[in-house]
Amino acid sequence: MNGAQALLKTLADAGVEVCFSNPGTSEMHFVAALDGETRMRAVLCLFEGVATGAADGYARMAGKPAAVLLHLGCGLGNGLANLHNARKGKVPVLNIVGDHATWHVQYDAQLQSDIETVARNVSPGFVRTSQSTAALCQDAVDALVAARGLPGQVATLILPADVSWGEGGQPCPPPPAPTPPPAHEATVQAIAQAIRGSEKTVLLLGGQALREAALLDAARIAAHAPQGSVQLLAEVFPTRMERGAGLPFVERVAYLAEMAGVQLAGVRHLVLVDSKSPVSFFAYPGKASDLVPAGCTVHTLAAPEQDAAASLARLAQALGASGVQPPLQPAQRPDRPRGLLTAPKVCKAVGHLLPENAILIDEAITSGLMLNVMTAGCPRHDLLTLTGGAIGQGLPNAVGAAIACPDRPVIALIGDGTAMYTIQALWSMAREQLNVTAIVFNNASYSVLNVELDRVGAEEGGAKARAQLDLHGPVLNFAQLAQGMGVHAVRASTAEDFCTALEYALAQPGPHLIEALVPESLSGAKRKVLPWLLRSLPSLPPAVARALKKKVAP
Amino acid sequence: MNGAQALLKTLADAGVEVCFSNPGTSEMHFVAALDGETRMRAVLCLFEGVATGAADGYARMAGKPAAVLLHLGCGLGNGLANLHNARKGKVPVLNIVGDHATWHVQYDAQLQSDIETVARNVSPGFVRTSQSTAALCQDAVDALVAARGLPGQVATLILPADVSWGEGGQPCPPPPAPTPPPAHEATVQAIAQAIRGSEKTVLLLGGQALREAALLDAARIAAHAPQGSVQLLAEVFPTRMERGAGLPFVERVAYLAEMAGVQLAGVRHLVLVDSKSPVSFFAYPGKASDLVPAGCTVHTLAAPEQDAAASLARLAQALGASGVQPPLQPAQRPDRPRGLLTAPKVCKAVGHLLPENAILIDEAITSGLMLNVMTAGCPRHDLLTLTGGAIGQGLPNAVGAAIACPDRPVIALIGDGTAMYTIQALWSMAREQLNVTAIVFNNASYSVLNVELDRVGAEEGGAKARAQLDLHGPVLNFAQLAQGMGVHAVRASTAEDFCTALEYALAQPGPHLIEALVPESLSGAKRKVLPWLLRSLPSLPPAVARALKKKVAP
Repeated sequence: MNGAQALLKTLADAGVEVCFSNPGTSEMHFVAALDGETRMRAVLCLFEGVATGAADGYARMAGKPAAVLLHLGCGLGNGLANLHNARKGKVPVLNIVGDHATWHVQYDAQLQSDIETVARNVSPGFVRTSQSTAALCQDAVDALVAARGLPGQVATLILPADVSWGEGGQPCPPPPAPTPPPAHEATVQAIAQAIRGSEKTVLLLGGQALREAALLDAARIAAHAPQGSVQLLAEVFPTRMERGAGLPFVERVAYLAEMAGVQLAGVRHLVLVDSKSPVSFFAYPGKASDLVPAGCTVHTLAAPEQDAAASLARLAQALGASGVQPPLQPAQRPDRPRGLLTAPKVCKAVGHLLPENAILIDEAITSGLMLNVMTAGCPRHDLLTLTGGAIGQGLPNAVGAAIACPDRPVIALIGDGTAMYTIQALWSMAREQLNVTAIVFNNASYSVLNVELDRVGAEEGGAKARAQLDLHGPVLNFAQLAQGMGVHAVRASTAEDFCTALEYALAQPGPHLIEALVPESLSGAKRKVLPWLLRSLPSLPPAVARALKKKVAP
Repeated sequence: MNGAQALLKTLADAGVEVCFSNPGTSEMHFVAALDGETRMRAVLCLFEGVATGAADGYARMAGKPAAVLLHLGCGLGNGLANLHNARKGKVPVLNIVGDHATWHVQYDAQLQSDIETVARNVSPGFVRTSQSTAALCQDAVDALVAARGLPGQVATLILPADVSWGEGGQPCPPPPAPTPPPAHEATVQAIAQAIRGSEKTVLLLGGQALREAALLDAARIAAHAPQGSVQLLAEVFPTRMERGAGLPFVERVAYLAEMAGVQLAGVRHLVLVDSKSPVSFFAYPGKASDLVPAGCTVHTLAAPEQDAAASLARLAQALGASGVQPPLQPAQRPDRPRGLLTAPKVCKAVGHLLPENAILIDEAITSGLMLNVMTAGCPRHDLLTLTGGAIGQGLPNAVGAAIACPDRPVIALIGDGTAMYTIQALWSMAREQLNVTAIVFNNASYSVLNVELDRVGAEEGGAKARAQLDLHGPVLNFAQLAQGMGVHAVRASTAEDFCTALEYALAQPGPHLIEALVPESLSGAKRKVLPWLLRSLPSLPPAVARALKKKVAP
């Protein structure tokens, strides 16, 4: 048994059943060994960023890591952005990077580069170059232990070609499942004490705390607190958030720091539950990055390495809230939209038609502003978002999510700019006949950058500057791009056509792309205020909405 | 004047006139400053690998660096593969990576990552994070000095947003041009002495030594040497090679180590001229990586930091060969091909029609095996190849080459697998209306990996393994992909149609894509012997060809 064969057996024994791959010569023995391990499904991707993003999406939904197979330092570079998203989302990924044979490295051949150095950017916790065929499977098990956490992480195993092809591979037994501890009792009591004080408190839920059991306990705590003093917020870009009718509704922290400041105004206690203390996504001249208001105490109920759900259960118990019936989101859908298509109407149509148990992927940037509102009362679904801010995540995530959950419909909403980074994902959807509906908003603009150009105070932007944010000349045709990769696709410019196309896509198996031709609606002063108004007003308490309106009025 | 404005002035003063960009929020002040610097052309790319590959192609043809503008560590990751190709090709690139404001880094926001660490993979010689607006322009000048070499390199300047937007920018004067020294006289004399000994000698030409003046002196030395004892070889993947009728013909070292071994058999003196001692591209079980034959002495006439052309001129002078008339490639073209299209017929058609002064980009992998032979006697042209082995270089290189040389036709031959890594380059071609003809060979296969699967000895590859190298199900439609990005495109499956399409593309301005539908012809035993037979036999000396045939006969 060679190294690659033993590695595949070890992985399969440990429950790693999918490998998203873009191999080259140094990975040929791994590829050859695939036929000997029936439990491993190999999914070919035509670009490494698709493979890494698919592994991210898979793990978010499967709750366990997939393997990625990349070719040397350059393949890792191509896969880096979506590994970054996985890292920031605390998602487990077993990142296998093939390397030259150990004795070939000294010759500095064309593809030689420093793989470990690049890997540290996304795998600060585990980078190891396997040194021998005999040690390979233990290395893989160590990588798996690191990847599965908690917190989940990207573990990079560098696999030299001769370690792969050498004889003497020794499969290793699977590692035990991780058993994260809950919060310490003293911590629970201290936070319970703070909550009993009736000062304004926010439970900021992230990571594992956005799943049903944790959400219910958090909602019980809020319902039980005196005078509505405890509110729930979710981190701005959740890895995986369970939501919809029958679950507690949780508002997300806004992307725009100006708006997040309104959400957090007056908070005296911020309780982190598998989340980070909120900071501005970018820095802006003259504005603070730390969004925690003055006078607010930050508490950590559950750090990422702790069991968030169990910690919330303990807190609910400490407060006597375990038996409380929490308020749940009632079922409600928006009406079927009509007339000329706009981005909000696309979101409305999705809300009108979202099927039961869907997986919703939101990488629509400005065009998806209304998505949260429009789907809040839809049948229960999972929402996956852009955890690390590295665009090009949505289509690959859809590949992985659909493979993890073949019986659930996957709907991915993607901006036109962002779709182009990993457009090759469409081919893998076609090849694997995945039940994915990709909705690409074509407004022919890096619309969010028009907002950001203003926000950073670079308001003098002239024709050359605006051209850098403009996707006209030529306007992309995503339907043609999809058809060129074997995916059924249509363009829609009316709400009626869009709804028909979405109904068709959801009814027919296999992948579909719907290109929504929408106007670039954010311009001038509107660009500055509309995004957070649109996203936030319908779901905000009236007092906050009033404060916000006042703040952003011209 | 803010930092970005001063930086743009400094760059333009130093002759940096093009910036290939894919900006994000942290680069908005750089973008806003573009309108104030009329000498800087900004070329928007929809994926960072296009921007970096375009900068590579631009510098190869312009002989000076362009700037690249990338967004944080993830943007750099996406651009890494083509920066790797630039690094291996000793190509100057000024790689500007925007970063968060210096005071924002501590908050570990979503897009925070360790940029310097990633940059070291491609910029081992120069990575610097600018620390203040006042220092920025000197940092940029230092980066330019490093980039321009010799040898040229990728210099990475990390530009925090607050350094960019801060007031107090101070433009710096342009740095002096590099003045590389020629070979030491003692070295020249020692190599001349070796050549006079009439033992079999190879001048291995790379980098700057593949341009006209150097080629002519090398050919004079070979013509002057006794009994044909000196042969010329070019490195396997030249950065830029001037060739065609009227220039010396120089055979390239073969990609396949087995074949390179035949080319180098019996060589007693190997003289490196801005080239590396040849090594196998990949390692193979039981095969040596170092291709220098036993008993061969390796001399370095010109290291990459020396003036290769001046060094060859000195060597010619020392040998009394300066006045020799070297043999030059006669003008000759293959006939117009007929019948069902195959990859060799595409190469033949290119040879039949290649216009004067073309820029030929070869990233066709197995399908381009006949290209060298078919174009050897074409009108003079430049050849750009895959210097670092990181596929996805050809289409972006074409963008940059066409911008550097707007009056020269660019013809890029690309494999189907490789085209998909940076397919977004087509959009930039359309937007900038570049005179590029992209020829994509569609054989629905990672054909070279079928060869490599055999070569590494992994011959047991079954259905799952072969599926990882197979691009069927669905077959890509590159004409549709191109049309979706605004590029005129056709498919051809006969040689007649292909020739018509190529004539049309060369006659009409702007970009064109021709999709050549060709069979995947390498299978079974043929895969093992055909590649180097095809590539090499027509141009090899008869004795070598005979030896080769014997070696590879079944």
